[in-house]
Amino acid sequence: MASGPASRVVDAGLLSPVRAGTPAEAATSDDAWLQAMLDSEAALVRAQASLGNVPAAAARTISELAHADRLDPRELAVLSRGAANPVVALVQAFTRLVAAADPDAAEYVHRGSTSQDIFDTALMLVARRTLDLLVADLEQVAGSLRALAEAHAGTLMAGRTLALHAVPTTFGLKAAGWLAAVSTATDRLKTLRSEGLFVQLGGAAGTLAGYAEYEKLHRGARQCAAGEDPTAAHTDAHTDGRAAGHGAGLTAGYAERLTARFAAETRLCAPVLPWHSHRAPVAALAAELALATGVLGKIAVDVQSMARTETAEVAEPTAAGRGISSAMPQKRNPALATLIRSAALQIPAYASVLTHTMLSEDERSAGAWHAEWQPLRECLRLAGGAAHTARELVAGLEMSPGRMRANLELTGGLIVSERLAAVLAPALGKATAKEVMGRASAEAAASGLPLGTVLSNDPSIAGQFDAEELARLLDPAEYTGAAEELVRRSLTRYAGPSDAQGV
Amino acid sequence: MASGPASRVVDAGLLSPVRAGTPAEAATSDDAWLQAMLDSEAALVRAQASLGNVPAAAARTISELAHADRLDPRELAVLSRGAANPVVALVQAFTRLVAAADPDAAEYVHRGSTSQDIFDTALMLVARRTLDLLVADLEQVAGSLRALAEAHAGTLMAGRTLALHAVPTTFGLKAAGWLAAVSTATDRLKTLRSEGLFVQLGGAAGTLAGYAEYEKLHRGARQCAAGEDPTAAHTDAHTDGRAAGHGAGLTAGYAERLTARFAAETRLCAPVLPWHSHRAPVAALAAELALATGVLGKIAVDVQSMARTETAEVAEPTAAGRGISSAMPQKRNPALATLIRSAALQIPAYASVLTHTMLSEDERSAGAWHAEWQPLRECLRLAGGAAHTARELVAGLEMSPGRMRANLELTGGLIVSERLAAVLAPALGKATAKEVMGRASAEAAASGLPLGTVLSNDPSIAGQFDAEELARLLDPAEYTGAAEELVRRSLTRYAGPSDAQGV
Amino acid sequence: MASGPASRVVDAGLLSPVRAGTPAEAATSDDAWLQAMLDSEAALVRAQASLGNVPAAAARTISELAHADRLDPRELAVLSRGAANPVVALVQAFTRLVAAADPDAAEYVHRGSTSQDIFDTALMLVARRTLDLLVADLEQVAGSLRALAEAHAGTLMAGRTLALHAVPTTFGLKAAGWLAAVSTATDRLKTLRSEGLFVQLGGAAGTLAGYAEYEKLHRGARQCAAGEDPTAAHTDAHTDGRAAGHGAGLTAGYAERLTARFAAETRLCAPVLPWHSHRAPVAALAAELALATGVLGKIAVDVQSMARTETAEVAEPTAAGRGISSAMPQKRNPALATLIRSAALQIPAYASVLTHTMLSEDERSAGAWHAEWQPLRECLRLAGGAAHTARELVAGLEMSPGRMRANLELTGGLIVSERLAAVLAPALGKATAKEVMGRASAEAAASGLPLGTVLSNDPSIAGQFDAEELARLLDPAEYTGAAEELVRRSLTRYAGPSDAQGV
Amino acid sequence: MASGPASRVVDAGLLSPVRAGTPAEAATSDDAWLQAMLDSEAALVRAQASLGNVPAAAARTISELAHADRLDPRELAVLSRGAANPVVALVQAFTRLVAAADPDAAEYVHRGSTSQDIFDTALMLVARRTLDLLVADLEQVAGSLRALAEAHAGTLMAGRTLALHAVPTTFGLKAAGWLAAVSTATDRLKTLRSEGLFVQLGGAAGTLAGYAEYEKLHRGARQCAAGEDPTAAHTDAHTDGRAAGHGAGLTAGYAERLTARFAAETRLCAPVLPWHSHRAPVAALAAELALATGVLGKIAVDVQSMARTETAEVAEPTAAGRGISSAMPQKRNPALATLIRSAALQIPAYASVLTHTMLSEDERSAGAWHAEWQPLRECLRLAGGAAHTARELVAGLEMSPGRMRANLELTGGLIVSERLAAVLAPALGKATAKEVMGRASAEAAASGLPLGTVLSNDPSIAGQFDAEELARLLDPAEYTGAAEELVRRSLTRYAGPSDAQGV
Repeated sequence: MASGPASRVVDAGLLSPVRAGTPAEAATSDDAWLQAMLDSEAALVRAQASLGNVPAAAARTISELAHADRLDPRELAVLSRGAANPVVALVQAFTRLVAAADPDAAEYVHRGSTSQDIFDTALMLVARRTLDLLVADLEQVAGSLRALAEAHAGTLMAGRTLALHAVPTTFGLKAAGWLAAVSTATDRLKTLRSEGLFVQLGGAAGTLAGYAEYEKLHRGARQCAAGEDPTAAHTDAHTDGRAAGHGAGLTAGYAERLTARFAAETRLCAPVLPWHSHRAPVAALAAELALATGVLGKIAVDVQSMARTETAEVAEPTAAGRGISSAMPQKRNPALATLIRSAALQIPAYASVLTHTMLSEDERSAGAWHAEWQPLRECLRLAGGAAHTARELVAGLEMSPGRMRANLELTGGLIVSERLAAVLAPALGKATAKEVMGRASAEAAASGLPLGTVLSNDPSIAGQFDAEELARLLDPAEYTGAAEELVRRSLTRYAGPSDAQGV
Repeated sequence: MASGPASRVVDAGLLSPVRAGTPAEAATSDDAWLQAMLDSEAALVRAQASLGNVPAAAARTISELAHADRLDPRELAVLSRGAANPVVALVQAFTRLVAAADPDAAEYVHRGSTSQDIFDTALMLVARRTLDLLVADLEQVAGSLRALAEAHAGTLMAGRTLALHAVPTTFGLKAAGWLAAVSTATDRLKTLRSEGLFVQLGGAAGTLAGYAEYEKLHRGARQCAAGEDPTAAHTDAHTDGRAAGHGAGLTAGYAERLTARFAAETRLCAPVLPWHSHRAPVAALAAELALATGVLGKIAVDVQSMARTETAEVAEPTAAGRGISSAMPQKRNPALATLIRSAALQIPAYASVLTHTMLSEDERSAGAWHAEWQPLRECLRLAGGAAHTARELVAGLEMSPGRMRANLELTGGLIVSERLAAVLAPALGKATAKEVMGRASAEAAASGLPLGTVLSNDPSIAGQFDAEELARLLDPAEYTGAAEELVRRSLTRYAGPSDAQGV
Repeated sequence: MASGPASRVVDAGLLSPVRAGTPAEAATSDDAWLQAMLDSEAALVRAQASLGNVPAAAARTISELAHADRLDPRELAVLSRGAANPVVALVQAFTRLVAAADPDAAEYVHRGSTSQDIFDTALMLVARRTLDLLVADLEQVAGSLRALAEAHAGTLMAGRTLALHAVPTTFGLKAAGWLAAVSTATDRLKTLRSEGLFVQLGGAAGTLAGYAEYEKLHRGARQCAAGEDPTAAHTDAHTDGRAAGHGAGLTAGYAERLTARFAAETRLCAPVLPWHSHRAPVAALAAELALATGVLGKIAVDVQSMARTETAEVAEPTAAGRGISSAMPQKRNPALATLIRSAALQIPAYASVLTHTMLSEDERSAGAWHAEWQPLRECLRLAGGAAHTARELVAGLEMSPGRMRANLELTGGLIVSERLAAVLAPALGKATAKEVMGRASAEAAASGLPLGTVLSNDPSIAGQFDAEELARLLDPAEYTGAAEELVRRSLTRYAGPSDAQGV
Repeated sequence: MASGPASRVVDAGLLSPVRAGTPAEAATSDDAWLQAMLDSEAALVRAQASLGNVPAAAARTISELAHADRLDPRELAVLSRGAANPVVALVQAFTRLVAAADPDAAEYVHRGSTSQDIFDTALMLVARRTLDLLVADLEQVAGSLRALAEAHAGTLMAGRTLALHAVPTTFGLKAAGWLAAVSTATDRLKTLRSEGLFVQLGGAAGTLAGYAEYEKLHRGARQCAAGEDPTAAHTDAHTDGRAAGHGAGLTAGYAERLTARFAAETRLCAPVLPWHSHRAPVAALAAELALATGVLGKIAVDVQSMARTETAEVAEPTAAGRGISSAMPQKRNPALATLIRSAALQIPAYASVLTHTMLSEDERSAGAWHAEWQPLRECLRLAGGAAHTARELVAGLEMSPGRMRANLELTGGLIVSERLAAVLAPALGKATAKEVMGRASAEAAASGLPLGTVLSNDPSIAGQFDAEELARLLDPAEYTGAAEELVRRSLTRYAGPSDAQGV
């Protein structure tokens, strides 16, 4: 086993600058995960206490001692190989810690529980804490995009498809599209955060039998203390309509109540059933994180496309040490977009592991569960890192409207050839009009002459327009379609954090 | 170019039996996709006609001729290499077809449009049609699972974790877990179907400029016909608050109205903005299909686990030719579960492509868009095929409660050792109790003696229980925790198609 | 079950233009797969005949009838749902076919065999036939790249990193890099083709027991016919050193001999052991296909980068219908690069399925094997389609050296700022020199002045160079490092199909 | 930026027990990566010194100071966000370190170099060091498997396909199959290690221009010192056949020589060309790691299949804390197999990222390069962790031949029904024989009668065998085909580390 300094730096972020030092990295660190497991243990004890199965003082002591800095994550990590998960070692270490302070309280640590209840609930806590950061960053991104869309609603630029100029558009519309995508992804994440993060509570194999056993023991004790007949509850239960036999004796609705209390203590949702071997909640979480990161990756590739030396329509915000090269003094690399794109290129694969591990046999898979953890952490911290980076990128994006306009005019009018074809269609027929314009475009491209000149010289369209009309038709500013309407719509629809909904 | 018989059987399902011959395969075939593209073209023309830009007769003619069986998908497929998408060749072929019937109507085919508007809308139509099949099959699956959960609420079996017996559970609870997962996935798909399938309408680069140009031409014509001043609308538009310049002259709200009409004609949703290069809707669709298939895959691996020769707790429904081997006469393979699992093993990778291609540069990517199509089709038909197969599997699953009970008793009481540890905990302390039971369990396993015998002989627990009490504690039927409560909850919560919601 | 026209066009290539109509599509079609399965059946019978276990006439009849056009792949596909693989139905249909011609011969169809022996061997035959096409296309690609590297060894252009101009390079070096990558991938595929494609021969569970049983029966018959004592071989076997008991009676070395004959008949390799549940050969095949397609995808994204309207350094070869848009008359889209990139974006995910399905439990997985087929076909036909497309792309690539030179000079000398820093380093120190050049570069970028002018005016470097020396230092043509040496090396190393080796 | 304790435990292995504390984790840690980058810087300086471009003393000083423990990986990680890679910050910090010791030597740190040359070479060093560990562990695994195959060549067990008993096999053959797969994977990794790990040397954009510039400067100085005419080399170069112009003046063959020296200093291979934007070497490395892990994953799922409570043919080696549950005292979970499987379930996705990032535009991608690092590290440490775990698993696997035999007999002879069908075929015809045996098998399964009894009572086969013959035919020990031959072959072929080759 490695130890000492080597273990200190298994991963300090050196290979993943998109999240190195970001809040999301801290929120998903081993320390954070350890804290979330301790939070789960403490919440579970408090939930049991609230139902009379654990002394309040023990719950208090356990909660007070549940701090990650009292334990060594590296030591637990190495010990976790024994049970194939970190909870067994954690429970042993934490029980010792509690026992040192209060031996009686130690009896109530992890009582009736199982590794998966603690780990899965911790995972959901880590997810919620990271989603809080992610959503906040995405809302900042959206705010900056709103400002860009508003400011550049009339900034003309070339629309580009399949790498080539297509028809004119506006930078405002581009920003409005980014805004719509970011806002929608944010809304989805908020819905997931409020409805899709569940406590796990099932005990060893999903029946809550361990918890139930202790409830029965304590109920008996409570009833004896109260001078009641401990078999009465059993009888009552029968009158609840439950068949005799299996589960007989368990207080009616105990599973639901304990789950609800556990959920309340953790501020997570209570599931209908334990989901220990039904992993859709985890797969859905990963899928949403991948979607959100994909939306940011789209912005990044657009920024890179516009930032290319020959195009030079945007540049990234400057900062000390930003975008520098170890070789080339003149470089001002689109480093933020590069980081975001690096995250977006990884996350689809990580998320796919989580869908794959849904094939979880029996009441707990021997491997599929264990394969979830690291890729899920990567999804969380890559999404969080990408959003944190995107916030900086869009807040300071440097625009060159002049360069956009110059690029738009680079092709001497070819960018509006679709329009000319449309205008000629009534007279020539749609097919002939497109053919004529295709020929004229090719001639203009080959000769380097402006399209207007070529068209003026073309007998097949001679007399269709006078010079002024042709000039107007060739003006890119006159052929932006509904760009402005769409920008307005996007700004109205995605007016701010509180209003954003839908696609 | 290949031709003749070879082209006939590029893929007739031979390598993908999970969907061969299923309705989902037909709904996602090239024929179906071709029909959906024609449906999109026809719907677009009708939408334009409803706004006065296309003669009603032309829209009618185009709609009447829009049938896939008039075109050759193979020929279009091969031609599609020219433009890198099938729409260009389709528009040419369909225009010729319409022109042959009515040259005037041919002028209105694909007018103002672009390949992506047609293809993406067609993709969404194909998705909706396949989702209809998928949802119906999943609802049938859920119905069968409800019946199983109800019938087997009291059927004891071994709960298994990490390949080994853990604690007792019931088959009813297993079925209830499947039910919850299937119902939740179905609800998500229904939400997606009603809220997440959008028409695409953006024209060449997302500004709707082509559509707008024709609207302006027709508005002029309409106004002249009505004796109005065609520049008036322009002026009105200004009073709508729109700046002069870009988009000037376009009827206010035209983009929204045309989009709404197109959505109404296709019964898809109208997006806030064109999503041509914002691919979250497609990625989200793939993600949901992967989730639903993962849920079915989980059922499949559970069935296989229980069907193993040594376990033999369930068997697949028999049918002529089902589960046979080319070698072994005695075989009755779990073929349906095998097919479902084969789908679930593929779909996470396919869905990941769709997240990856969200990195779609500019107003249309030169490749990312094109990479979506085949993996999305695979997601649709694998999910559809898996659901169709699962319906047959769960409807006829053959149960062996006797074998379940026999397996449960295979370990001579070890399966309830958790319970004994809990019961001993108050007297011995939790840690000691677990240790004692660990030792006793090991002794029982090594000696082959029943756990009860070992415990009776163990001085450390002598006197803790009398024989009758011990026998009761060792009875697996007495240690199913909240299994019954959970089954009832699941049945109540997922009572039927109309009521299912949430996780 | 779907039937009629719908089944005809499950997939005719409409959603995957990169391979629609290419030879690789035909070589991997259902028809081709069916033929390969029949070829496997026939080769197996001939192998058995060559060892005296099947009458030569029966082997001949079976071989003569083994033609895919006698069977209906669609019918077999739908029937394949029963056994979860197509071989069972195929064997039934083919046996009927043979029986109609010669009932005796029908007894020898698939004798002693199992579905997997036939299917896996067929898969390898399909792979070899597709690799033949793929390798031939890649060698054509390499040939064109050699010509480009040779012709453009001195064609200056901007080297670009992180989207921005970095330092000068040559188009020849870019082509040489493509050449090296393509040649290396081709060599790997050739090695795989000659050493990595194996027959599968294991019988029902990898022991060849069925084949062995028939050998024993026939050996007995042969010996009786020869007047020998049929138990003698048994005794001989013992003297071979084999323990009595298991496998007793099987002719020594029979498994190896039968495997070798089967390999000879199919011209595939003979494996050391059956690999029915050890799937590395299939996963390695998929991995190589993904690597080769990735190499082509790199060329495609480079072409797109250079083809962008603002850059315009290359254009795709023209052809009727190539690169056209359904909307824009002026478009000449990089359609070939788009197709190649669409393949390269899909194949990593497909190949990952094949690695995943290596987790194949027992002697044959209930699902993992079945999940391999369609993604492997996709790998084969996407790689084949991409190579076929790349061949056309690089053979006709249109170069604009003038535009390359103009772009190189776009930044007024900034592209050689690394050189200036190096030259100044001895005098100023490396760090200061880089800092000075960073400042000068920023000033040049901000002011729009040429870097030479800024440097001439900079007191900190005044006197370091005279004007002529500075002009020479700023000449991009003087700063191409070892570009020419590298081009020569690549041309020497990858001189032609017969010589290419290594990275 | 996070700091302090939180940064200490970004990842200490808590979520990935398969590699926590293993040598591979240490070999791929941030510390290890940092050391490898420093090793690359030092090797580069020594290579330059050996060609006369750096004073020997400076090279010595730099080499002596190149120790990771002098730098803070966390600090570098956070700074790496500026340039989007860690090298820029590393070079700054390391230069300061060297300058503090020897300001002159500091001039030679990273001279002429670029981030990617250092990072990629470091990556390959990390890969080689991890491969050393991985290969050694795999050879240990193979050794244990040889022993198992040898010892259990005659240990009968049920062969299982699609979850059900198929025909008899031996555990020796199963172990021989594992051995063949592990040996082949090991050989592939060894080949990769010796032929596929390359230094990267290209400078800013692959032309080595920076290195070349310094060579020219130094050559001039060397020649002046020697009283030669510095332009002579230029002339000589021309006589070497190089065209005047680009690259003129660079010493002939300098790129090749510098690359060879760099390779010698690092003991990596020298590539034909720089591979900065041709990423097949990295993708191929990831693919091999995934293959090797898949091979181990196959062993893991087999072990789990045999370890199931109902089957109980094998158990994992015991060790303190191994396989324990936080809930169930009786548990002895297959924890090692679980860990291995968890790695094998993740790695295909990680490896797919590396194939995907081959789409690396221009001379360095703005994101694709950066996306490689973390998934490649995961591939290395998961493969290394899985091999380390597998070594322990197979070395101590506990076998239950008695249980294997008992399971084999569980079906009362059904497991040899294939044999009976073969033996009956000559008399009844193959189809009828299979049908008869299918009917008899179904009857035996339904009635619970042994197959022998059913057959004895079946008139259609009455008289085919006498009782003794039937008993012999029904003996599983008599129907293991070529199992023994195959075991011998595998043991001969994969006799030991020095001999292993091929599949």
